[in-house]
Amino acid sequence: MSDLAPDAKGRGRPDETGQGYAVTPELVRDVSVALKHDRPDEARALVANLHAADLADLIEALAPDRRDSLVDAIGRDLDPAVLAEFEEQVRDDVIEHLAPEDLAAHAAELDTDDAAHVLEDLEAVERRRVLEAMPVADRELVEAALAYPEDSAGRIMQRDYVAVPAYWTIGDVIDWLREGDNVPDEFYEIFVVDPRHVPIGTVPLNRAMRAKRPVQVSEIMNAELRTIPVEMDQEEVAFVFDQYDLMSAPVIDGDGRLIGQITVDDVVDVIQDEHEEDLLRLGGVTAEGDLFRPAAETASTRFTWLLVNLFTAILASITIAFFIDTIKQIVALAVLMPIVASMGGNAGTQTLTVTVRAIATRELTMANATRVFWKETMVGGYNGLAFALLAGIVAGLWFDSAMLGVVIGLAMIVNMLVAGVSGMAVPFLLWRAGIDPAISAVVLLTTITDVIGFFAFLGLASLILL
Amino acid sequence: MSDLAPDAKGRGRPDETGQGYAVTPELVRDVSVALKHDRPDEARALVANLHAADLADLIEALAPDRRDSLVDAIGRDLDPAVLAEFEEQVRDDVIEHLAPEDLAAHAAELDTDDAAHVLEDLEAVERRRVLEAMPVADRELVEAALAYPEDSAGRIMQRDYVAVPAYWTIGDVIDWLREGDNVPDEFYEIFVVDPRHVPIGTVPLNRAMRAKRPVQVSEIMNAELRTIPVEMDQEEVAFVFDQYDLMSAPVIDGDGRLIGQITVDDVVDVIQDEHEEDLLRLGGVTAEGDLFRPAAETASTRFTWLLVNLFTAILASITIAFFIDTIKQIVALAVLMPIVASMGGNAGTQTLTVTVRAIATRELTMANATRVFWKETMVGGYNGLAFALLAGIVAGLWFDSAMLGVVIGLAMIVNMLVAGVSGMAVPFLLWRAGIDPAISAVVLLTTITDVIGFFAFLGLASLILL
Repeated sequence: MSDLAPDAKGRGRPDETGQGYAVTPELVRDVSVALKHDRPDEARALVANLHAADLADLIEALAPDRRDSLVDAIGRDLDPAVLAEFEEQVRDDVIEHLAPEDLAAHAAELDTDDAAHVLEDLEAVERRRVLEAMPVADRELVEAALAYPEDSAGRIMQRDYVAVPAYWTIGDVIDWLREGDNVPDEFYEIFVVDPRHVPIGTVPLNRAMRAKRPVQVSEIMNAELRTIPVEMDQEEVAFVFDQYDLMSAPVIDGDGRLIGQITVDDVVDVIQDEHEEDLLRLGGVTAEGDLFRPAAETASTRFTWLLVNLFTAILASITIAFFIDTIKQIVALAVLMPIVASMGGNAGTQTLTVTVRAIATRELTMANATRVFWKETMVGGYNGLAFALLAGIVAGLWFDSAMLGVVIGLAMIVNMLVAGVSGMAVPFLLWRAGIDPAISAVVLLTTITDVIGFFAFLGLASLILL
Repeated sequence: MSDLAPDAKGRGRPDETGQGYAVTPELVRDVSVALKHDRPDEARALVANLHAADLADLIEALAPDRRDSLVDAIGRDLDPAVLAEFEEQVRDDVIEHLAPEDLAAHAAELDTDDAAHVLEDLEAVERRRVLEAMPVADRELVEAALAYPEDSAGRIMQRDYVAVPAYWTIGDVIDWLREGDNVPDEFYEIFVVDPRHVPIGTVPLNRAMRAKRPVQVSEIMNAELRTIPVEMDQEEVAFVFDQYDLMSAPVIDGDGRLIGQITVDDVVDVIQDEHEEDLLRLGGVTAEGDLFRPAAETASTRFTWLLVNLFTAILASITIAFFIDTIKQIVALAVLMPIVASMGGNAGTQTLTVTVRAIATRELTMANATRVFWKETMVGGYNGLAFALLAGIVAGLWFDSAMLGVVIGLAMIVNMLVAGVSGMAVPFLLWRAGIDPAISAVVLLTTITDVIGFFAFLGLASLILL
């Protein structure tokens, strides 16, 4: 970040230190030292001017036991927005540490969607206690938000919006906004509704500002409206915002009536979360906030995935065990066999990654699946041939046996073809079956490429070399 | 998507078919069939009402040879915005197919940043020909944008913005906007500048609309300004927008003067691109638009990565070759050895994925690196112990040898510890050295876990069992 701080000549200059991102390692260290030596006032002073998002980052960067100390040091002055900015794991820890009435006071100050976000992971009893300590009006809004399914549009929408009838003039709109009793803090468009409160158009603020007072809203409104049903999945919402470059969108209930709005800043958070999920799942990590959990907890959340992999590794071993006599006779096979399996695994992972990504971005659909499938098969074939040649030459020269080179070459072609086919087919079929391809495809794929890799190489060896 | 289409009762209802996303497999098929049977008018009619982003998706979903046919069928009616929405690979193909003067006409209609985006990948000669065919004013703007480094703020900024002096009243602003000679199509904030055109504040449009005419801009402006230096990397820009929930931000030159603005919709595209890059790189795919390239081209772009992996696989084989006599005596080792290597690879990939992600989101910094490092070492230790036990029991029972179980258990502990340590240290050190951890860390890591896995298992076996 680079705030403009006027220098001696009064000229604005971007801050050069670390791009101006406020949470420097030095700041983290200073705060940490102040807390360690029990100087809460010093710690509070150090963080006093931080933006909520930066303060959240700083708290996350502290060791777990210092986080509570800093929150205590800040006390009632804590900006509630900080709670909404935390990673889930850290938020849960901090929230547990707060008194229910303090948490209720913080939640009441947040936007409805942020308050729901903060409270959604609390245990039922605890959550009720916090909700009961909130002012009735705020509580009802948060309860309504929490009544929508997790990850639905209802959870990320704000109940505040600006809606006007189509027959109003821009002058009416401006006067009404200026009276300003019920106007939300944040809005980027004016929604136009019919008498049943069904949205029929939208007026971007810049267009409203340029229109003259007597102009009717209906004349300048954009009637090509993208509405979001309240039960729409948030991933779908993010797609719509991205696809149509929206800044905000009206949310409608089952009868098509306007009940809230979603703004692009919330959608950016959704996009980040979904990406994080996809990336971590492909890497075999299923838990959010993994970085912030204690070691024992992290180890246990990662254990499941490793256990699944132990089974697939044992499957591969069983495949090898079938050829134990072959290996006894030609021990060079034991040296070379990981090459075939490893190349298949890597080629398959390439295809799988492209496929998972293309499914997420909707570039891969039923419409082009067959074409992509044949393409990936051909890619597997081309690279299978190339690496058959390379691996064949290496193996043939290394062990001074042309036939061993032929065997590894043939096995390579088989396994690279299998890798191309299954790297595309496995995630695609999982997706069609309603299963998240990011988490389950990798393990299925590597099982296939390991087993086929060992089987093809050792099987061909016993056929050809013995 | 769910546009509101008034039904018989005139009531808006969200479209239920496939969430209303316009590019259905049926549409793709119909367009494809029309083109195949040489009925361009029919194809044109089918796509006539599509949003530019949807039309781009549809063209991408067609087989490569049909894409040009559809672009020909649409002809001069092609919405230039479609060009900006394409994946790079498809865009290059379509652009090559357009006449330079048509391309110039399209580019002139686009926002500067989009036009630069469309033209940046053209070859120099071709690009000059297109630029020369553009109107001078547009050409100069695009050339200025292209003069900034790729992936810098200068490339994604728009040259149009609204800036006013601090002493103006809201009335002045509104009157000036209504006269509207030089007002851009899109703006979400009014930037406030001093006499040297240095931004000193910003007025969100909703605040401007609610203010009364005599109010001075300086009274309601937000002086906590986030400015973007024009040479800032776009990834950094995305971080700033996400961190501070910005809708738009002023871009400044080296003297701090306002020269453009970046809006959140462009930033969303950057975020998507950066995520795509990270995900694909972790999967060993370095080329953008991989899905849309012909098979031979895809095979050759993926070849490099596989070649690197062949070398690392050969390194692992060399490690095994040191123990060829040991394996000859105890062939069970050949059966079991992939388990140790594979578990290390998987555990290391988990840590690596979390680390790469945490670096990208700045959750991992110099401030907490030591703590995370020890944590990951402990996670490796915990799971090393757990899987030492499991693998030890399986191996001991399978080959009826307690000592074999002990050997695989010890090797497992060693390799899981190494995986934890290097899964965190490798990407972190690469990042500190200025190398992209997403692409180079995976190959380094799996080399380490393979070599150490085979070495520890076979080495311990020859020490203990022989």
